[in-house]
Amino acid sequence: MAAPVGIFLCRRNFSGTAGFPGVVFSILRHKRQDDFDQRWKNTGCSRRQFCHGHVPDFLPKRLSLEPDKKLAASAPIFRAVKFGADGRHTRFDIRKPALCQELGLQVRDLRFQQQTILQPRDTAIIIRMEEIKAIVSPDCVYILDPEEPRDKILLGELKTQLEGDNSSPVAHLPLEFKGLEAILNYRISSLKKELDVLEPAILQVLTDLVEPSFMSLDRSKLRVLLQYRKSLTEFQTDVREYVEVLTDILDYDESIEGMCLTDKITNNMSDGKPDHLRHVDEMELLLENCLGRAEDIVNRVAEVKDLIEDSEQIIFMNLDSHRNVMMRLNVQLTMGTFSIALFGMMGTAFGMNLLSSLEEDPKAFWIITGVMFAGCGLLWRRLLWFLGREVPPTRKWSWKNFKPSGQ
Amino acid sequence: MAAPVGIFLCRRNFSGTAGFPGVVFSILRHKRQDDFDQRWKNTGCSRRQFCHGHVPDFLPKRLSLEPDKKLAASAPIFRAVKFGADGRHTRFDIRKPALCQELGLQVRDLRFQQQTILQPRDTAIIIRMEEIKAIVSPDCVYILDPEEPRDKILLGELKTQLEGDNSSPVAHLPLEFKGLEAILNYRISSLKKELDVLEPAILQVLTDLVEPSFMSLDRSKLRVLLQYRKSLTEFQTDVREYVEVLTDILDYDESIEGMCLTDKITNNMSDGKPDHLRHVDEMELLLENCLGRAEDIVNRVAEVKDLIEDSEQIIFMNLDSHRNVMMRLNVQLTMGTFSIALFGMMGTAFGMNLLSSLEEDPKAFWIITGVMFAGCGLLWRRLLWFLGREVPPTRKWSWKNFKPSGQ
Amino acid sequence: MAAPVGIFLCRRNFSGTAGFPGVVFSILRHKRQDDFDQRWKNTGCSRRQFCHGHVPDFLPKRLSLEPDKKLAASAPIFRAVKFGADGRHTRFDIRKPALCQELGLQVRDLRFQQQTILQPRDTAIIIRMEEIKAIVSPDCVYILDPEEPRDKILLGELKTQLEGDNSSPVAHLPLEFKGLEAILNYRISSLKKELDVLEPAILQVLTDLVEPSFMSLDRSKLRVLLQYRKSLTEFQTDVREYVEVLTDILDYDESIEGMCLTDKITNNMSDGKPDHLRHVDEMELLLENCLGRAEDIVNRVAEVKDLIEDSEQIIFMNLDSHRNVMMRLNVQLTMGTFSIALFGMMGTAFGMNLLSSLEEDPKAFWIITGVMFAGCGLLWRRLLWFLGREVPPTRKWSWKNFKPSGQ
Amino acid sequence: MAAPVGIFLCRRNFSGTAGFPGVVFSILRHKRQDDFDQRWKNTGCSRRQFCHGHVPDFLPKRLSLEPDKKLAASAPIFRAVKFGADGRHTRFDIRKPALCQELGLQVRDLRFQQQTILQPRDTAIIIRMEEIKAIVSPDCVYILDPEEPRDKILLGELKTQLEGDNSSPVAHLPLEFKGLEAILNYRISSLKKELDVLEPAILQVLTDLVEPSFMSLDRSKLRVLLQYRKSLTEFQTDVREYVEVLTDILDYDESIEGMCLTDKITNNMSDGKPDHLRHVDEMELLLENCLGRAEDIVNRVAEVKDLIEDSEQIIFMNLDSHRNVMMRLNVQLTMGTFSIALFGMMGTAFGMNLLSSLEEDPKAFWIITGVMFAGCGLLWRRLLWFLGREVPPTRKWSWKNFKPSGQ
Amino acid sequence: MAAPVGIFLCRRNFSGTAGFPGVVFSILRHKRQDDFDQRWKNTGCSRRQFCHGHVPDFLPKRLSLEPDKKLAASAPIFRAVKFGADGRHTRFDIRKPALCQELGLQVRDLRFQQQTILQPRDTAIIIRMEEIKAIVSPDCVYILDPEEPRDKILLGELKTQLEGDNSSPVAHLPLEFKGLEAILNYRISSLKKELDVLEPAILQVLTDLVEPSFMSLDRSKLRVLLQYRKSLTEFQTDVREYVEVLTDILDYDESIEGMCLTDKITNNMSDGKPDHLRHVDEMELLLENCLGRAEDIVNRVAEVKDLIEDSEQIIFMNLDSHRNVMMRLNVQLTMGTFSIALFGMMGTAFGMNLLSSLEEDPKAFWIITGVMFAGCGLLWRRLLWFLGREVPPTRKWSWKNFKPSGQ
Repeated sequence: MAAPVGIFLCRRNFSGTAGFPGVVFSILRHKRQDDFDQRWKNTGCSRRQFCHGHVPDFLPKRLSLEPDKKLAASAPIFRAVKFGADGRHTRFDIRKPALCQELGLQVRDLRFQQQTILQPRDTAIIIRMEEIKAIVSPDCVYILDPEEPRDKILLGELKTQLEGDNSSPVAHLPLEFKGLEAILNYRISSLKKELDVLEPAILQVLTDLVEPSFMSLDRSKLRVLLQYRKSLTEFQTDVREYVEVLTDILDYDESIEGMCLTDKITNNMSDGKPDHLRHVDEMELLLENCLGRAEDIVNRVAEVKDLIEDSEQIIFMNLDSHRNVMMRLNVQLTMGTFSIALFGMMGTAFGMNLLSSLEEDPKAFWIITGVMFAGCGLLWRRLLWFLGREVPPTRKWSWKNFKPSGQ
Repeated sequence: MAAPVGIFLCRRNFSGTAGFPGVVFSILRHKRQDDFDQRWKNTGCSRRQFCHGHVPDFLPKRLSLEPDKKLAASAPIFRAVKFGADGRHTRFDIRKPALCQELGLQVRDLRFQQQTILQPRDTAIIIRMEEIKAIVSPDCVYILDPEEPRDKILLGELKTQLEGDNSSPVAHLPLEFKGLEAILNYRISSLKKELDVLEPAILQVLTDLVEPSFMSLDRSKLRVLLQYRKSLTEFQTDVREYVEVLTDILDYDESIEGMCLTDKITNNMSDGKPDHLRHVDEMELLLENCLGRAEDIVNRVAEVKDLIEDSEQIIFMNLDSHRNVMMRLNVQLTMGTFSIALFGMMGTAFGMNLLSSLEEDPKAFWIITGVMFAGCGLLWRRLLWFLGREVPPTRKWSWKNFKPSGQ
Repeated sequence: MAAPVGIFLCRRNFSGTAGFPGVVFSILRHKRQDDFDQRWKNTGCSRRQFCHGHVPDFLPKRLSLEPDKKLAASAPIFRAVKFGADGRHTRFDIRKPALCQELGLQVRDLRFQQQTILQPRDTAIIIRMEEIKAIVSPDCVYILDPEEPRDKILLGELKTQLEGDNSSPVAHLPLEFKGLEAILNYRISSLKKELDVLEPAILQVLTDLVEPSFMSLDRSKLRVLLQYRKSLTEFQTDVREYVEVLTDILDYDESIEGMCLTDKITNNMSDGKPDHLRHVDEMELLLENCLGRAEDIVNRVAEVKDLIEDSEQIIFMNLDSHRNVMMRLNVQLTMGTFSIALFGMMGTAFGMNLLSSLEEDPKAFWIITGVMFAGCGLLWRRLLWFLGREVPPTRKWSWKNFKPSGQ
Repeated sequence: MAAPVGIFLCRRNFSGTAGFPGVVFSILRHKRQDDFDQRWKNTGCSRRQFCHGHVPDFLPKRLSLEPDKKLAASAPIFRAVKFGADGRHTRFDIRKPALCQELGLQVRDLRFQQQTILQPRDTAIIIRMEEIKAIVSPDCVYILDPEEPRDKILLGELKTQLEGDNSSPVAHLPLEFKGLEAILNYRISSLKKELDVLEPAILQVLTDLVEPSFMSLDRSKLRVLLQYRKSLTEFQTDVREYVEVLTDILDYDESIEGMCLTDKITNNMSDGKPDHLRHVDEMELLLENCLGRAEDIVNRVAEVKDLIEDSEQIIFMNLDSHRNVMMRLNVQLTMGTFSIALFGMMGTAFGMNLLSSLEEDPKAFWIITGVMFAGCGLLWRRLLWFLGREVPPTRKWSWKNFKPSGQ
Repeated sequence: MAAPVGIFLCRRNFSGTAGFPGVVFSILRHKRQDDFDQRWKNTGCSRRQFCHGHVPDFLPKRLSLEPDKKLAASAPIFRAVKFGADGRHTRFDIRKPALCQELGLQVRDLRFQQQTILQPRDTAIIIRMEEIKAIVSPDCVYILDPEEPRDKILLGELKTQLEGDNSSPVAHLPLEFKGLEAILNYRISSLKKELDVLEPAILQVLTDLVEPSFMSLDRSKLRVLLQYRKSLTEFQTDVREYVEVLTDILDYDESIEGMCLTDKITNNMSDGKPDHLRHVDEMELLLENCLGRAEDIVNRVAEVKDLIEDSEQIIFMNLDSHRNVMMRLNVQLTMGTFSIALFGMMGTAFGMNLLSSLEEDPKAFWIITGVMFAGCGLLWRRLLWFLGREVPPTRKWSWKNFKPSGQ
């Protein structure tokens, strides 16, 4: 069955969907064209097909019933990657309760029921950013259920950070800073990358659509535009959630302190100690830095949204304007046809098999014919003049009319 | 009488309305298709009828005059289900004043005048979530006026929680935590379920409507879309109210403390006691968890609303574009008709019963006929060329023009 | 003179305008149909007249110049109704300065320059809710400038409250609680009543307008819709102002304390006294209760507004879709006319009084006629096929296509 | 040169522009019709001219480059009117530095770079409200650069206040209260007056435009509407700025204290002193009063804006609906023409100079003619029936269909 | 390759793009017409070309991948201009780590990852305003990576300020005040200048587009309008970011204190010292002054945006209205053609070569012809009357109908 909801395939799910659609929209994730082309071919679906809006059918994962709960009940085992303080990592499967005990967390904390989470607990920071699930403790960083091809970069970045990248601003800080920096930075970078692909794609479709000389739209592009707008809206929600969790932490000084796990554990939190103060300042800087970059993305998304709306107005005006031009042309032609019909009736009259007493007049033919054609022409001209007065044609743009008013 | 307001039947009332319409819209509540089909048949109303917008008439309950007040005056008796600490429940009818006395509440507290209530009182927490009316006290949980088929799940969940589900994060906490967790979770789950039905239904209607190849809309779907939008708006209000009552509690530390009824009663509230602190933290976590899930639903609803609006713009563009295409075709035909009329006048002229002096010329017929047809064709071609210059046709989509700008 | 602004008559003023328009719009206030019909007849204006948008002309009171100021200058006498603590009331006229002195207020306090006021002063609470002007002091309640038929209910409710309605939650509280409860409840009830009339009226007009089978609108209903929207906007402003004055009080603990006049006067405000604490709690409950009910109304108004906007989009789509259908029909007919004209030219050619050398051929007539009709038919068919390919007709709704995606 | 930006002449500038345009738009300021007519005549410009949108060209002052700076550099001399505590005033010119020294202010304070200012300094309050520039000190009030005909009322009001108007609520308070009350009240009154002129003018244009029986718009009114909307937007900005400066003061208790200049200077600010407390209370009341009135204006402006938007939707529906009606008529006529053309082809066929073998049949003429006319009629009827089924005409409004749903 | 995204060239990038496009849009930056013309000529591109929307292709810098990071990695050398306390400046290149050490900053602080930064650090204030990167320390001011022709004015202003301009309000304050004042003022001035060019350009395009007498739009102007709207949106983002960074500082007293670097370093921050208090007050005044001016710009931008939207509505109404007028004309003509066709069929009938028995009647010709023409005329008149009743023409504007309602 060709599922009719196929067109609204969700940006968020394509990474998790097996086979075809994930590939189609991986255009949004993968930047290397050759790689992209290769994948396309593999699926046996031509590019053109996609662009014409022939989107294959599938049911978005998102719509399934209570996936979290079912998952939690049937499979309480996490595939975990654990990074130690020296950057080495081990892979293993661990049951949820065991992980809870190991980290001193509650079962509830590992449910990851919301899309975006950044919550300090007593002994660990719980993070979920769309697909990334991570737990940062003072000793180690866990990445839960990683998907290998996608999260490779994250794992690499974590490794680099923890091994001690001296150029990094958090090089001499406790481990939780490094883990946090790596994860938050990875997330903001992947958001930025996604926008860097989405934005020019939208601009291109818009450029094609606002082309002023066309009197109708390439309707397949409308569908592509709709798909992009949906992606953009979902992208906006993601970025806004990222901004919100950071703002929630930054709004309260205690929350920022709560993020400094090492200090909490070593009871190093008396206000006088300069080391602790420095840590809190560093944490604030780290979070503010991520927040600032996220807000720049928010601004760009808002600008693109505005641009889409503005363009749509322009498109409507363009279509309306074209329609008026054609309508005017139509009226002009109808005027001509009317004139011809009126004076043609003369000819029809003389064509009747009745006695007009002019049958033998040698000049009558030419006179009547002349009157017919001339009258028809004059009437049309008069009607056109009337139209020109009532609905004047548009003055063409002329450079002479353009004067910057600053003169 | 066929009430004209029938089309705007309220999502909120369908559970309470007897007979037909409740069934029609139970599509939004019941997921099992067979069950749904069965119910449909029982009402003697064909599915197709509904989908074409033949919505039966009835007056929404909501519009009736002051129902709360009248009800309160005439029937101050609640049908109550009381859950003890051990999960056992008893059913009985109780008069409002008696209930007030038993729980130490005021009469005002049991009026349930607002749609969504979550208010701690000295000895109990008063909850109303649309149809659910409940009172949570440190000893027991009351569900007031339950409707059996609908609220069965709630009663079951309450039972499970109170009997002591060890996997639950609130297993070792006082009774009010369990009752609250059960009710709030039930509410958020039923909201999620509702959206899980509403969202794909909307997506389907939109997919049908944005189909770019159609030049007009299936207008019955417009009506269905309107109905869905109304449901979505009401749904949004419900979720927002849920979010607001939780936020009102979470914004003030005293409110969160006020929710810990057991501690309040045992005078266990001095700040130093670690048990109380843990309870407050647990309450905050419980509420924050529900809030987070509700906010995810809010985000999804906002995305669907955006999608509907975007789709409507696309639909308008699609219709406008089709209109322009037809208009252009019309102008082309009118140009042809005009050409024919003009040169046809020649034939009419020679058809007149007048002397053209060419009557006997054997070639005249072919010459004139040739001029007529040829002139007509040439004129038309010239006019079409003019149209092509003034209103150029749309360049078709071509893959060659599509270049991701990232190259 | 027929004032052109008549159509935008203000919802707010109709109670104060003598004669006709007040009656016309009393539909918004009075619920009993018979009463309504009677009034209508009395004015000699037929219902139909109103519904067609024949709204009589008058200048809204609101636009007059500085009415408050002038009134204040020329008529500093209030008609007052004073309720004592026992529920008895006396009516008298009193000059503004005298009233100020009696209540210990300033002249400025009695100007009532804003539309909605709820301000505690040292010895009294000053209330203005649109038409209601009241002053609540610890000893008595003043209603200023009451209009009898309208404010009768308010006066009755005040009497009941003050006489001591034991079922009331404020029965054992100081007098200012009873006065406040009566006035705020009266206001919220009358707002609710107004919406209960306005909402179904709007739903009805919308139901008529979104009817998908009509290709144009009953334009008189558009005007009625516009009038309703205006009323709704003004209604929304009123409710919002009500919410704002309550929120302003509830946001600050001192303001709530300031509302407990009796405690203020008896110097009963030291924080330790349990009586005072109970009073403050009761005041907060009273105000919160009113606020909650007002917010429910705000939500309903927002939903109606959304519904109107959604319906308008649907109406536009409906009209556009109908237009496309007619446009397609028109193109089809034009194609037919074009075919006829083209092949009719053959007939015209043979109708010329010229020698075609076929004059005597007995079959020529039937051949030519056959070619004319057949060619014309074939051409039309071909053109229709072309149209069907370029602008395909809409697929009709079919139940088979409708599959809830949850399957 | 006729500057094309003329149509968007700024509401804000017309008072400062010499000659014509200032007069044209003084309609917004001056209420007396006769006065208005007189001014109009003086300029030699007919009213009709203006109403048709023939707005003269000029460059708005606002667009000039950095006017404040230039002005400040070239003309550091203020024309000042100084009011003493007894209400007497003197006029003189004073250089900026001298004024600074006299009042103990900094040069920056007298730059008046923002549109709306209300800032307490140590020894004076600096006020700018669009055109009004004033400085209130504990001893005197300065009005800077007053324009005589416009600011006469302000000067008069200041005089009255300072001379001691006993009915005024600030009669027994320090001088800065009186000055502030006069200036703030004058500003709010002039805003209210402006809206009292703008609102009915807009209502009138809208009433004309929403007239449902017209199938097109008087386009000159569209231009007038656009101009009014621009004025309204600018007006809204002004009122909002007024609200903001008052809110900025009222949000902080220190700011309100800072407005009590006399107390600051006499070091009367220790919290215990009842006099000072009373002053602060009075200042808060004064500002809150102005704020409340401004918020009423904000509400009215928002209502008018909503009304304009609603009306525009109605106008679009009206136009669309009319278009559909005409389109339907057109299709009906095209159907007729098509029928005539089809059956007229029969006549054309028999008009051919070919042998139809019916030439001598005396009934043939009547039969064929009858078939032509009858067939044409029947075909048309059938086509109309088809149209009526596909695109049914609109059901006319009928009172019988109108049933308030409250029954 | 002609990149299709060319039309959406970014306002922000034109200064950095070499060659052509930077020049095209320098219209937005450069005010001097002659200079502008000169540059235009140099590029060999005619003005007209630009105005017709022939925008050259290029890829906006903004869309490139992670430019900041790459830049940081490959070129950690800043071109710096250092201003000493006496206003003298030196130019040199400095590596990032060296600069960090010199100023006591962290590497992270010099990444300038956000578009707008104003952050106090312990020993310096870090500023980024779009293209300007600056560091203000208590001893000197650094401008990093200045572009000469653009930032000349900034350098000049800095020089003037630091050399000691006595008329400046910060003349006697520490160096960081002077640097800050110069940079913030330069930024706000350049924003204002940009708006001063953008606003009239937009007004002009709008004026051309809303011209009510044109029935279609000059579509090239639509494209220009779209480009301007995009610029305006980006401009709005810039101003809003400026406002936000200032508000972030002004919201917290500590932040303002943190800006007073000299006091921080000299440990002059004990609250009692009057000098420090004065500095904090001065800093607040300085920032508030800039904030106020920025908010005026925000208001103006919002007004222009509103105006654009209002104008678009007017344009749509205008187009719709024109279309209706043409549609009505078309219907009138179609009515005429229909009448002619109907009565012309009479003539066709009598033109048939059949026996009508009137062939010899000498009056028949004139009677039939008369009936044809007269019937046709009468039918048309009747149809027009019908149209006039159903779709009445628009009443023309008449001065008599215009009555200000204030009478």
